[in-house]
Amino acid sequence: MRNIRLDVCYDGTRYSGWQRQTSHDNTIQGKLETALSRILSEPIEISASGRTDTGVHAIGQVVNFHTDAAMDCTELLAQLRRYLPEDIGIYSCREVSPRFHARLNALEKTYRYRVWNSELPCVFERRYVAEMPEKLDVEAMHEAAQLFLGTHDFSAFCANRKMKKSTVRTIKAFSVERVGEEIHFTVTGNGFLHNMVRILVGTLIEVGRGEREMDSIPMLFGAKREQAGFLAPGKGLCLMEVRY
Amino acid sequence: MRNIRLDVCYDGTRYSGWQRQTSHDNTIQGKLETALSRILSEPIEISASGRTDTGVHAIGQVVNFHTDAAMDCTELLAQLRRYLPEDIGIYSCREVSPRFHARLNALEKTYRYRVWNSELPCVFERRYVAEMPEKLDVEAMHEAAQLFLGTHDFSAFCANRKMKKSTVRTIKAFSVERVGEEIHFTVTGNGFLHNMVRILVGTLIEVGRGEREMDSIPMLFGAKREQAGFLAPGKGLCLMEVRY
Repeated sequence: MRNIRLDVCYDGTRYSGWQRQTSHDNTIQGKLETALSRILSEPIEISASGRTDTGVHAIGQVVNFHTDAAMDCTELLAQLRRYLPEDIGIYSCREVSPRFHARLNALEKTYRYRVWNSELPCVFERRYVAEMPEKLDVEAMHEAAQLFLGTHDFSAFCANRKMKKSTVRTIKAFSVERVGEEIHFTVTGNGFLHNMVRILVGTLIEVGRGEREMDSIPMLFGAKREQAGFLAPGKGLCLMEVRY
Repeated sequence: MRNIRLDVCYDGTRYSGWQRQTSHDNTIQGKLETALSRILSEPIEISASGRTDTGVHAIGQVVNFHTDAAMDCTELLAQLRRYLPEDIGIYSCREVSPRFHARLNALEKTYRYRVWNSELPCVFERRYVAEMPEKLDVEAMHEAAQLFLGTHDFSAFCANRKMKKSTVRTIKAFSVERVGEEIHFTVTGNGFLHNMVRILVGTLIEVGRGEREMDSIPMLFGAKREQAGFLAPGKGLCLMEVRY
């Protein structure tokens, strides 16, 4: 069987997240699987590097699937682009080694969280930013972000309170910077728990507001969900890149 | 009576253009007048620097209106922001000289037209660009754009074929440049006829495709609509700035 890799982007605004639901298919996985199954005339199941939640976007999502179909990748790419809605885009389509698995082989992921931190209206970027016009201390948030670097138990940053698997993850880089009217939180790690990036950002925003002491951050490792910050809204988040 | 100036931006995607229609109010003027009339409890009529067509956007639209209401501008701005939909934004609200008129006093306007000139998907910018993935000669288009500079009869670039008023306008600057996956057409003039920017862009795109000789452009001054290029789609156009 052939193994095909797709590099995908999407505006998550009108979807119930990545993962296909049994009852309906208003998901990005659902749209892609339906398109691929029709184009290739066989049921296609795809694996992504990871799920994204409702309203979350992706510029660099990576997926793969297996097929017996003979259609070449150029033709498949052209048909996919014709078939998919305008808020799901395909950067590339190529045959890869049979052993490549989009989720299991992912070594590193980078997410960006965009906050619109301005009194000015954000009409054109409104789907891709979380609006927080209040005063935020960007330097303090950047400094606090560095305390997350390294390998820690991120149990307090996991939406799943009954997580049975390991909640240990490694964060390799984490920057917070002002870009025009926005603040960008850019984090790279070997993997992220459910809602982890949005809870990390919520925690840093509490530091930026002066509501949380930076020194208390190391005490959050291995702690309970209640001790970490709020869940920042989904629409500000974008999966930027997956490295293999 | 007080004279109030608003600096406004909007995503024109879901509106039938700027100008209020008698039958329904799915227009930006309609939304603004309805909001202002309710907030100030009196019927408000606004004048804009100019109309924009269906699907056309604005970053720097300027409007003014007269009112007897005493509400201060800070409060009015806050209420407008609360009342207006998320695709219409207000940058500023201030009292100006009684003689200021957004349309009659406009000296210069700048429009930008964005073409997505790439095989890559344009998921995130899709509402604000016209997709034209074909090969386009940017240098030739820029050179041709310079032939429009100066004061000319732009009758061939006017959608209104029975225009009774003067079709003479002055173009002060016109650049065509590649910006990443996009080509930006940026034009400044003392005023523009109905659809003029979109027909200028359509004409330049024909030059960029190699379908139209650059040398023929001066022959378009004072010519008929048929002789100029096609009408480029509305969604790529944005009113950037009005100078007074």
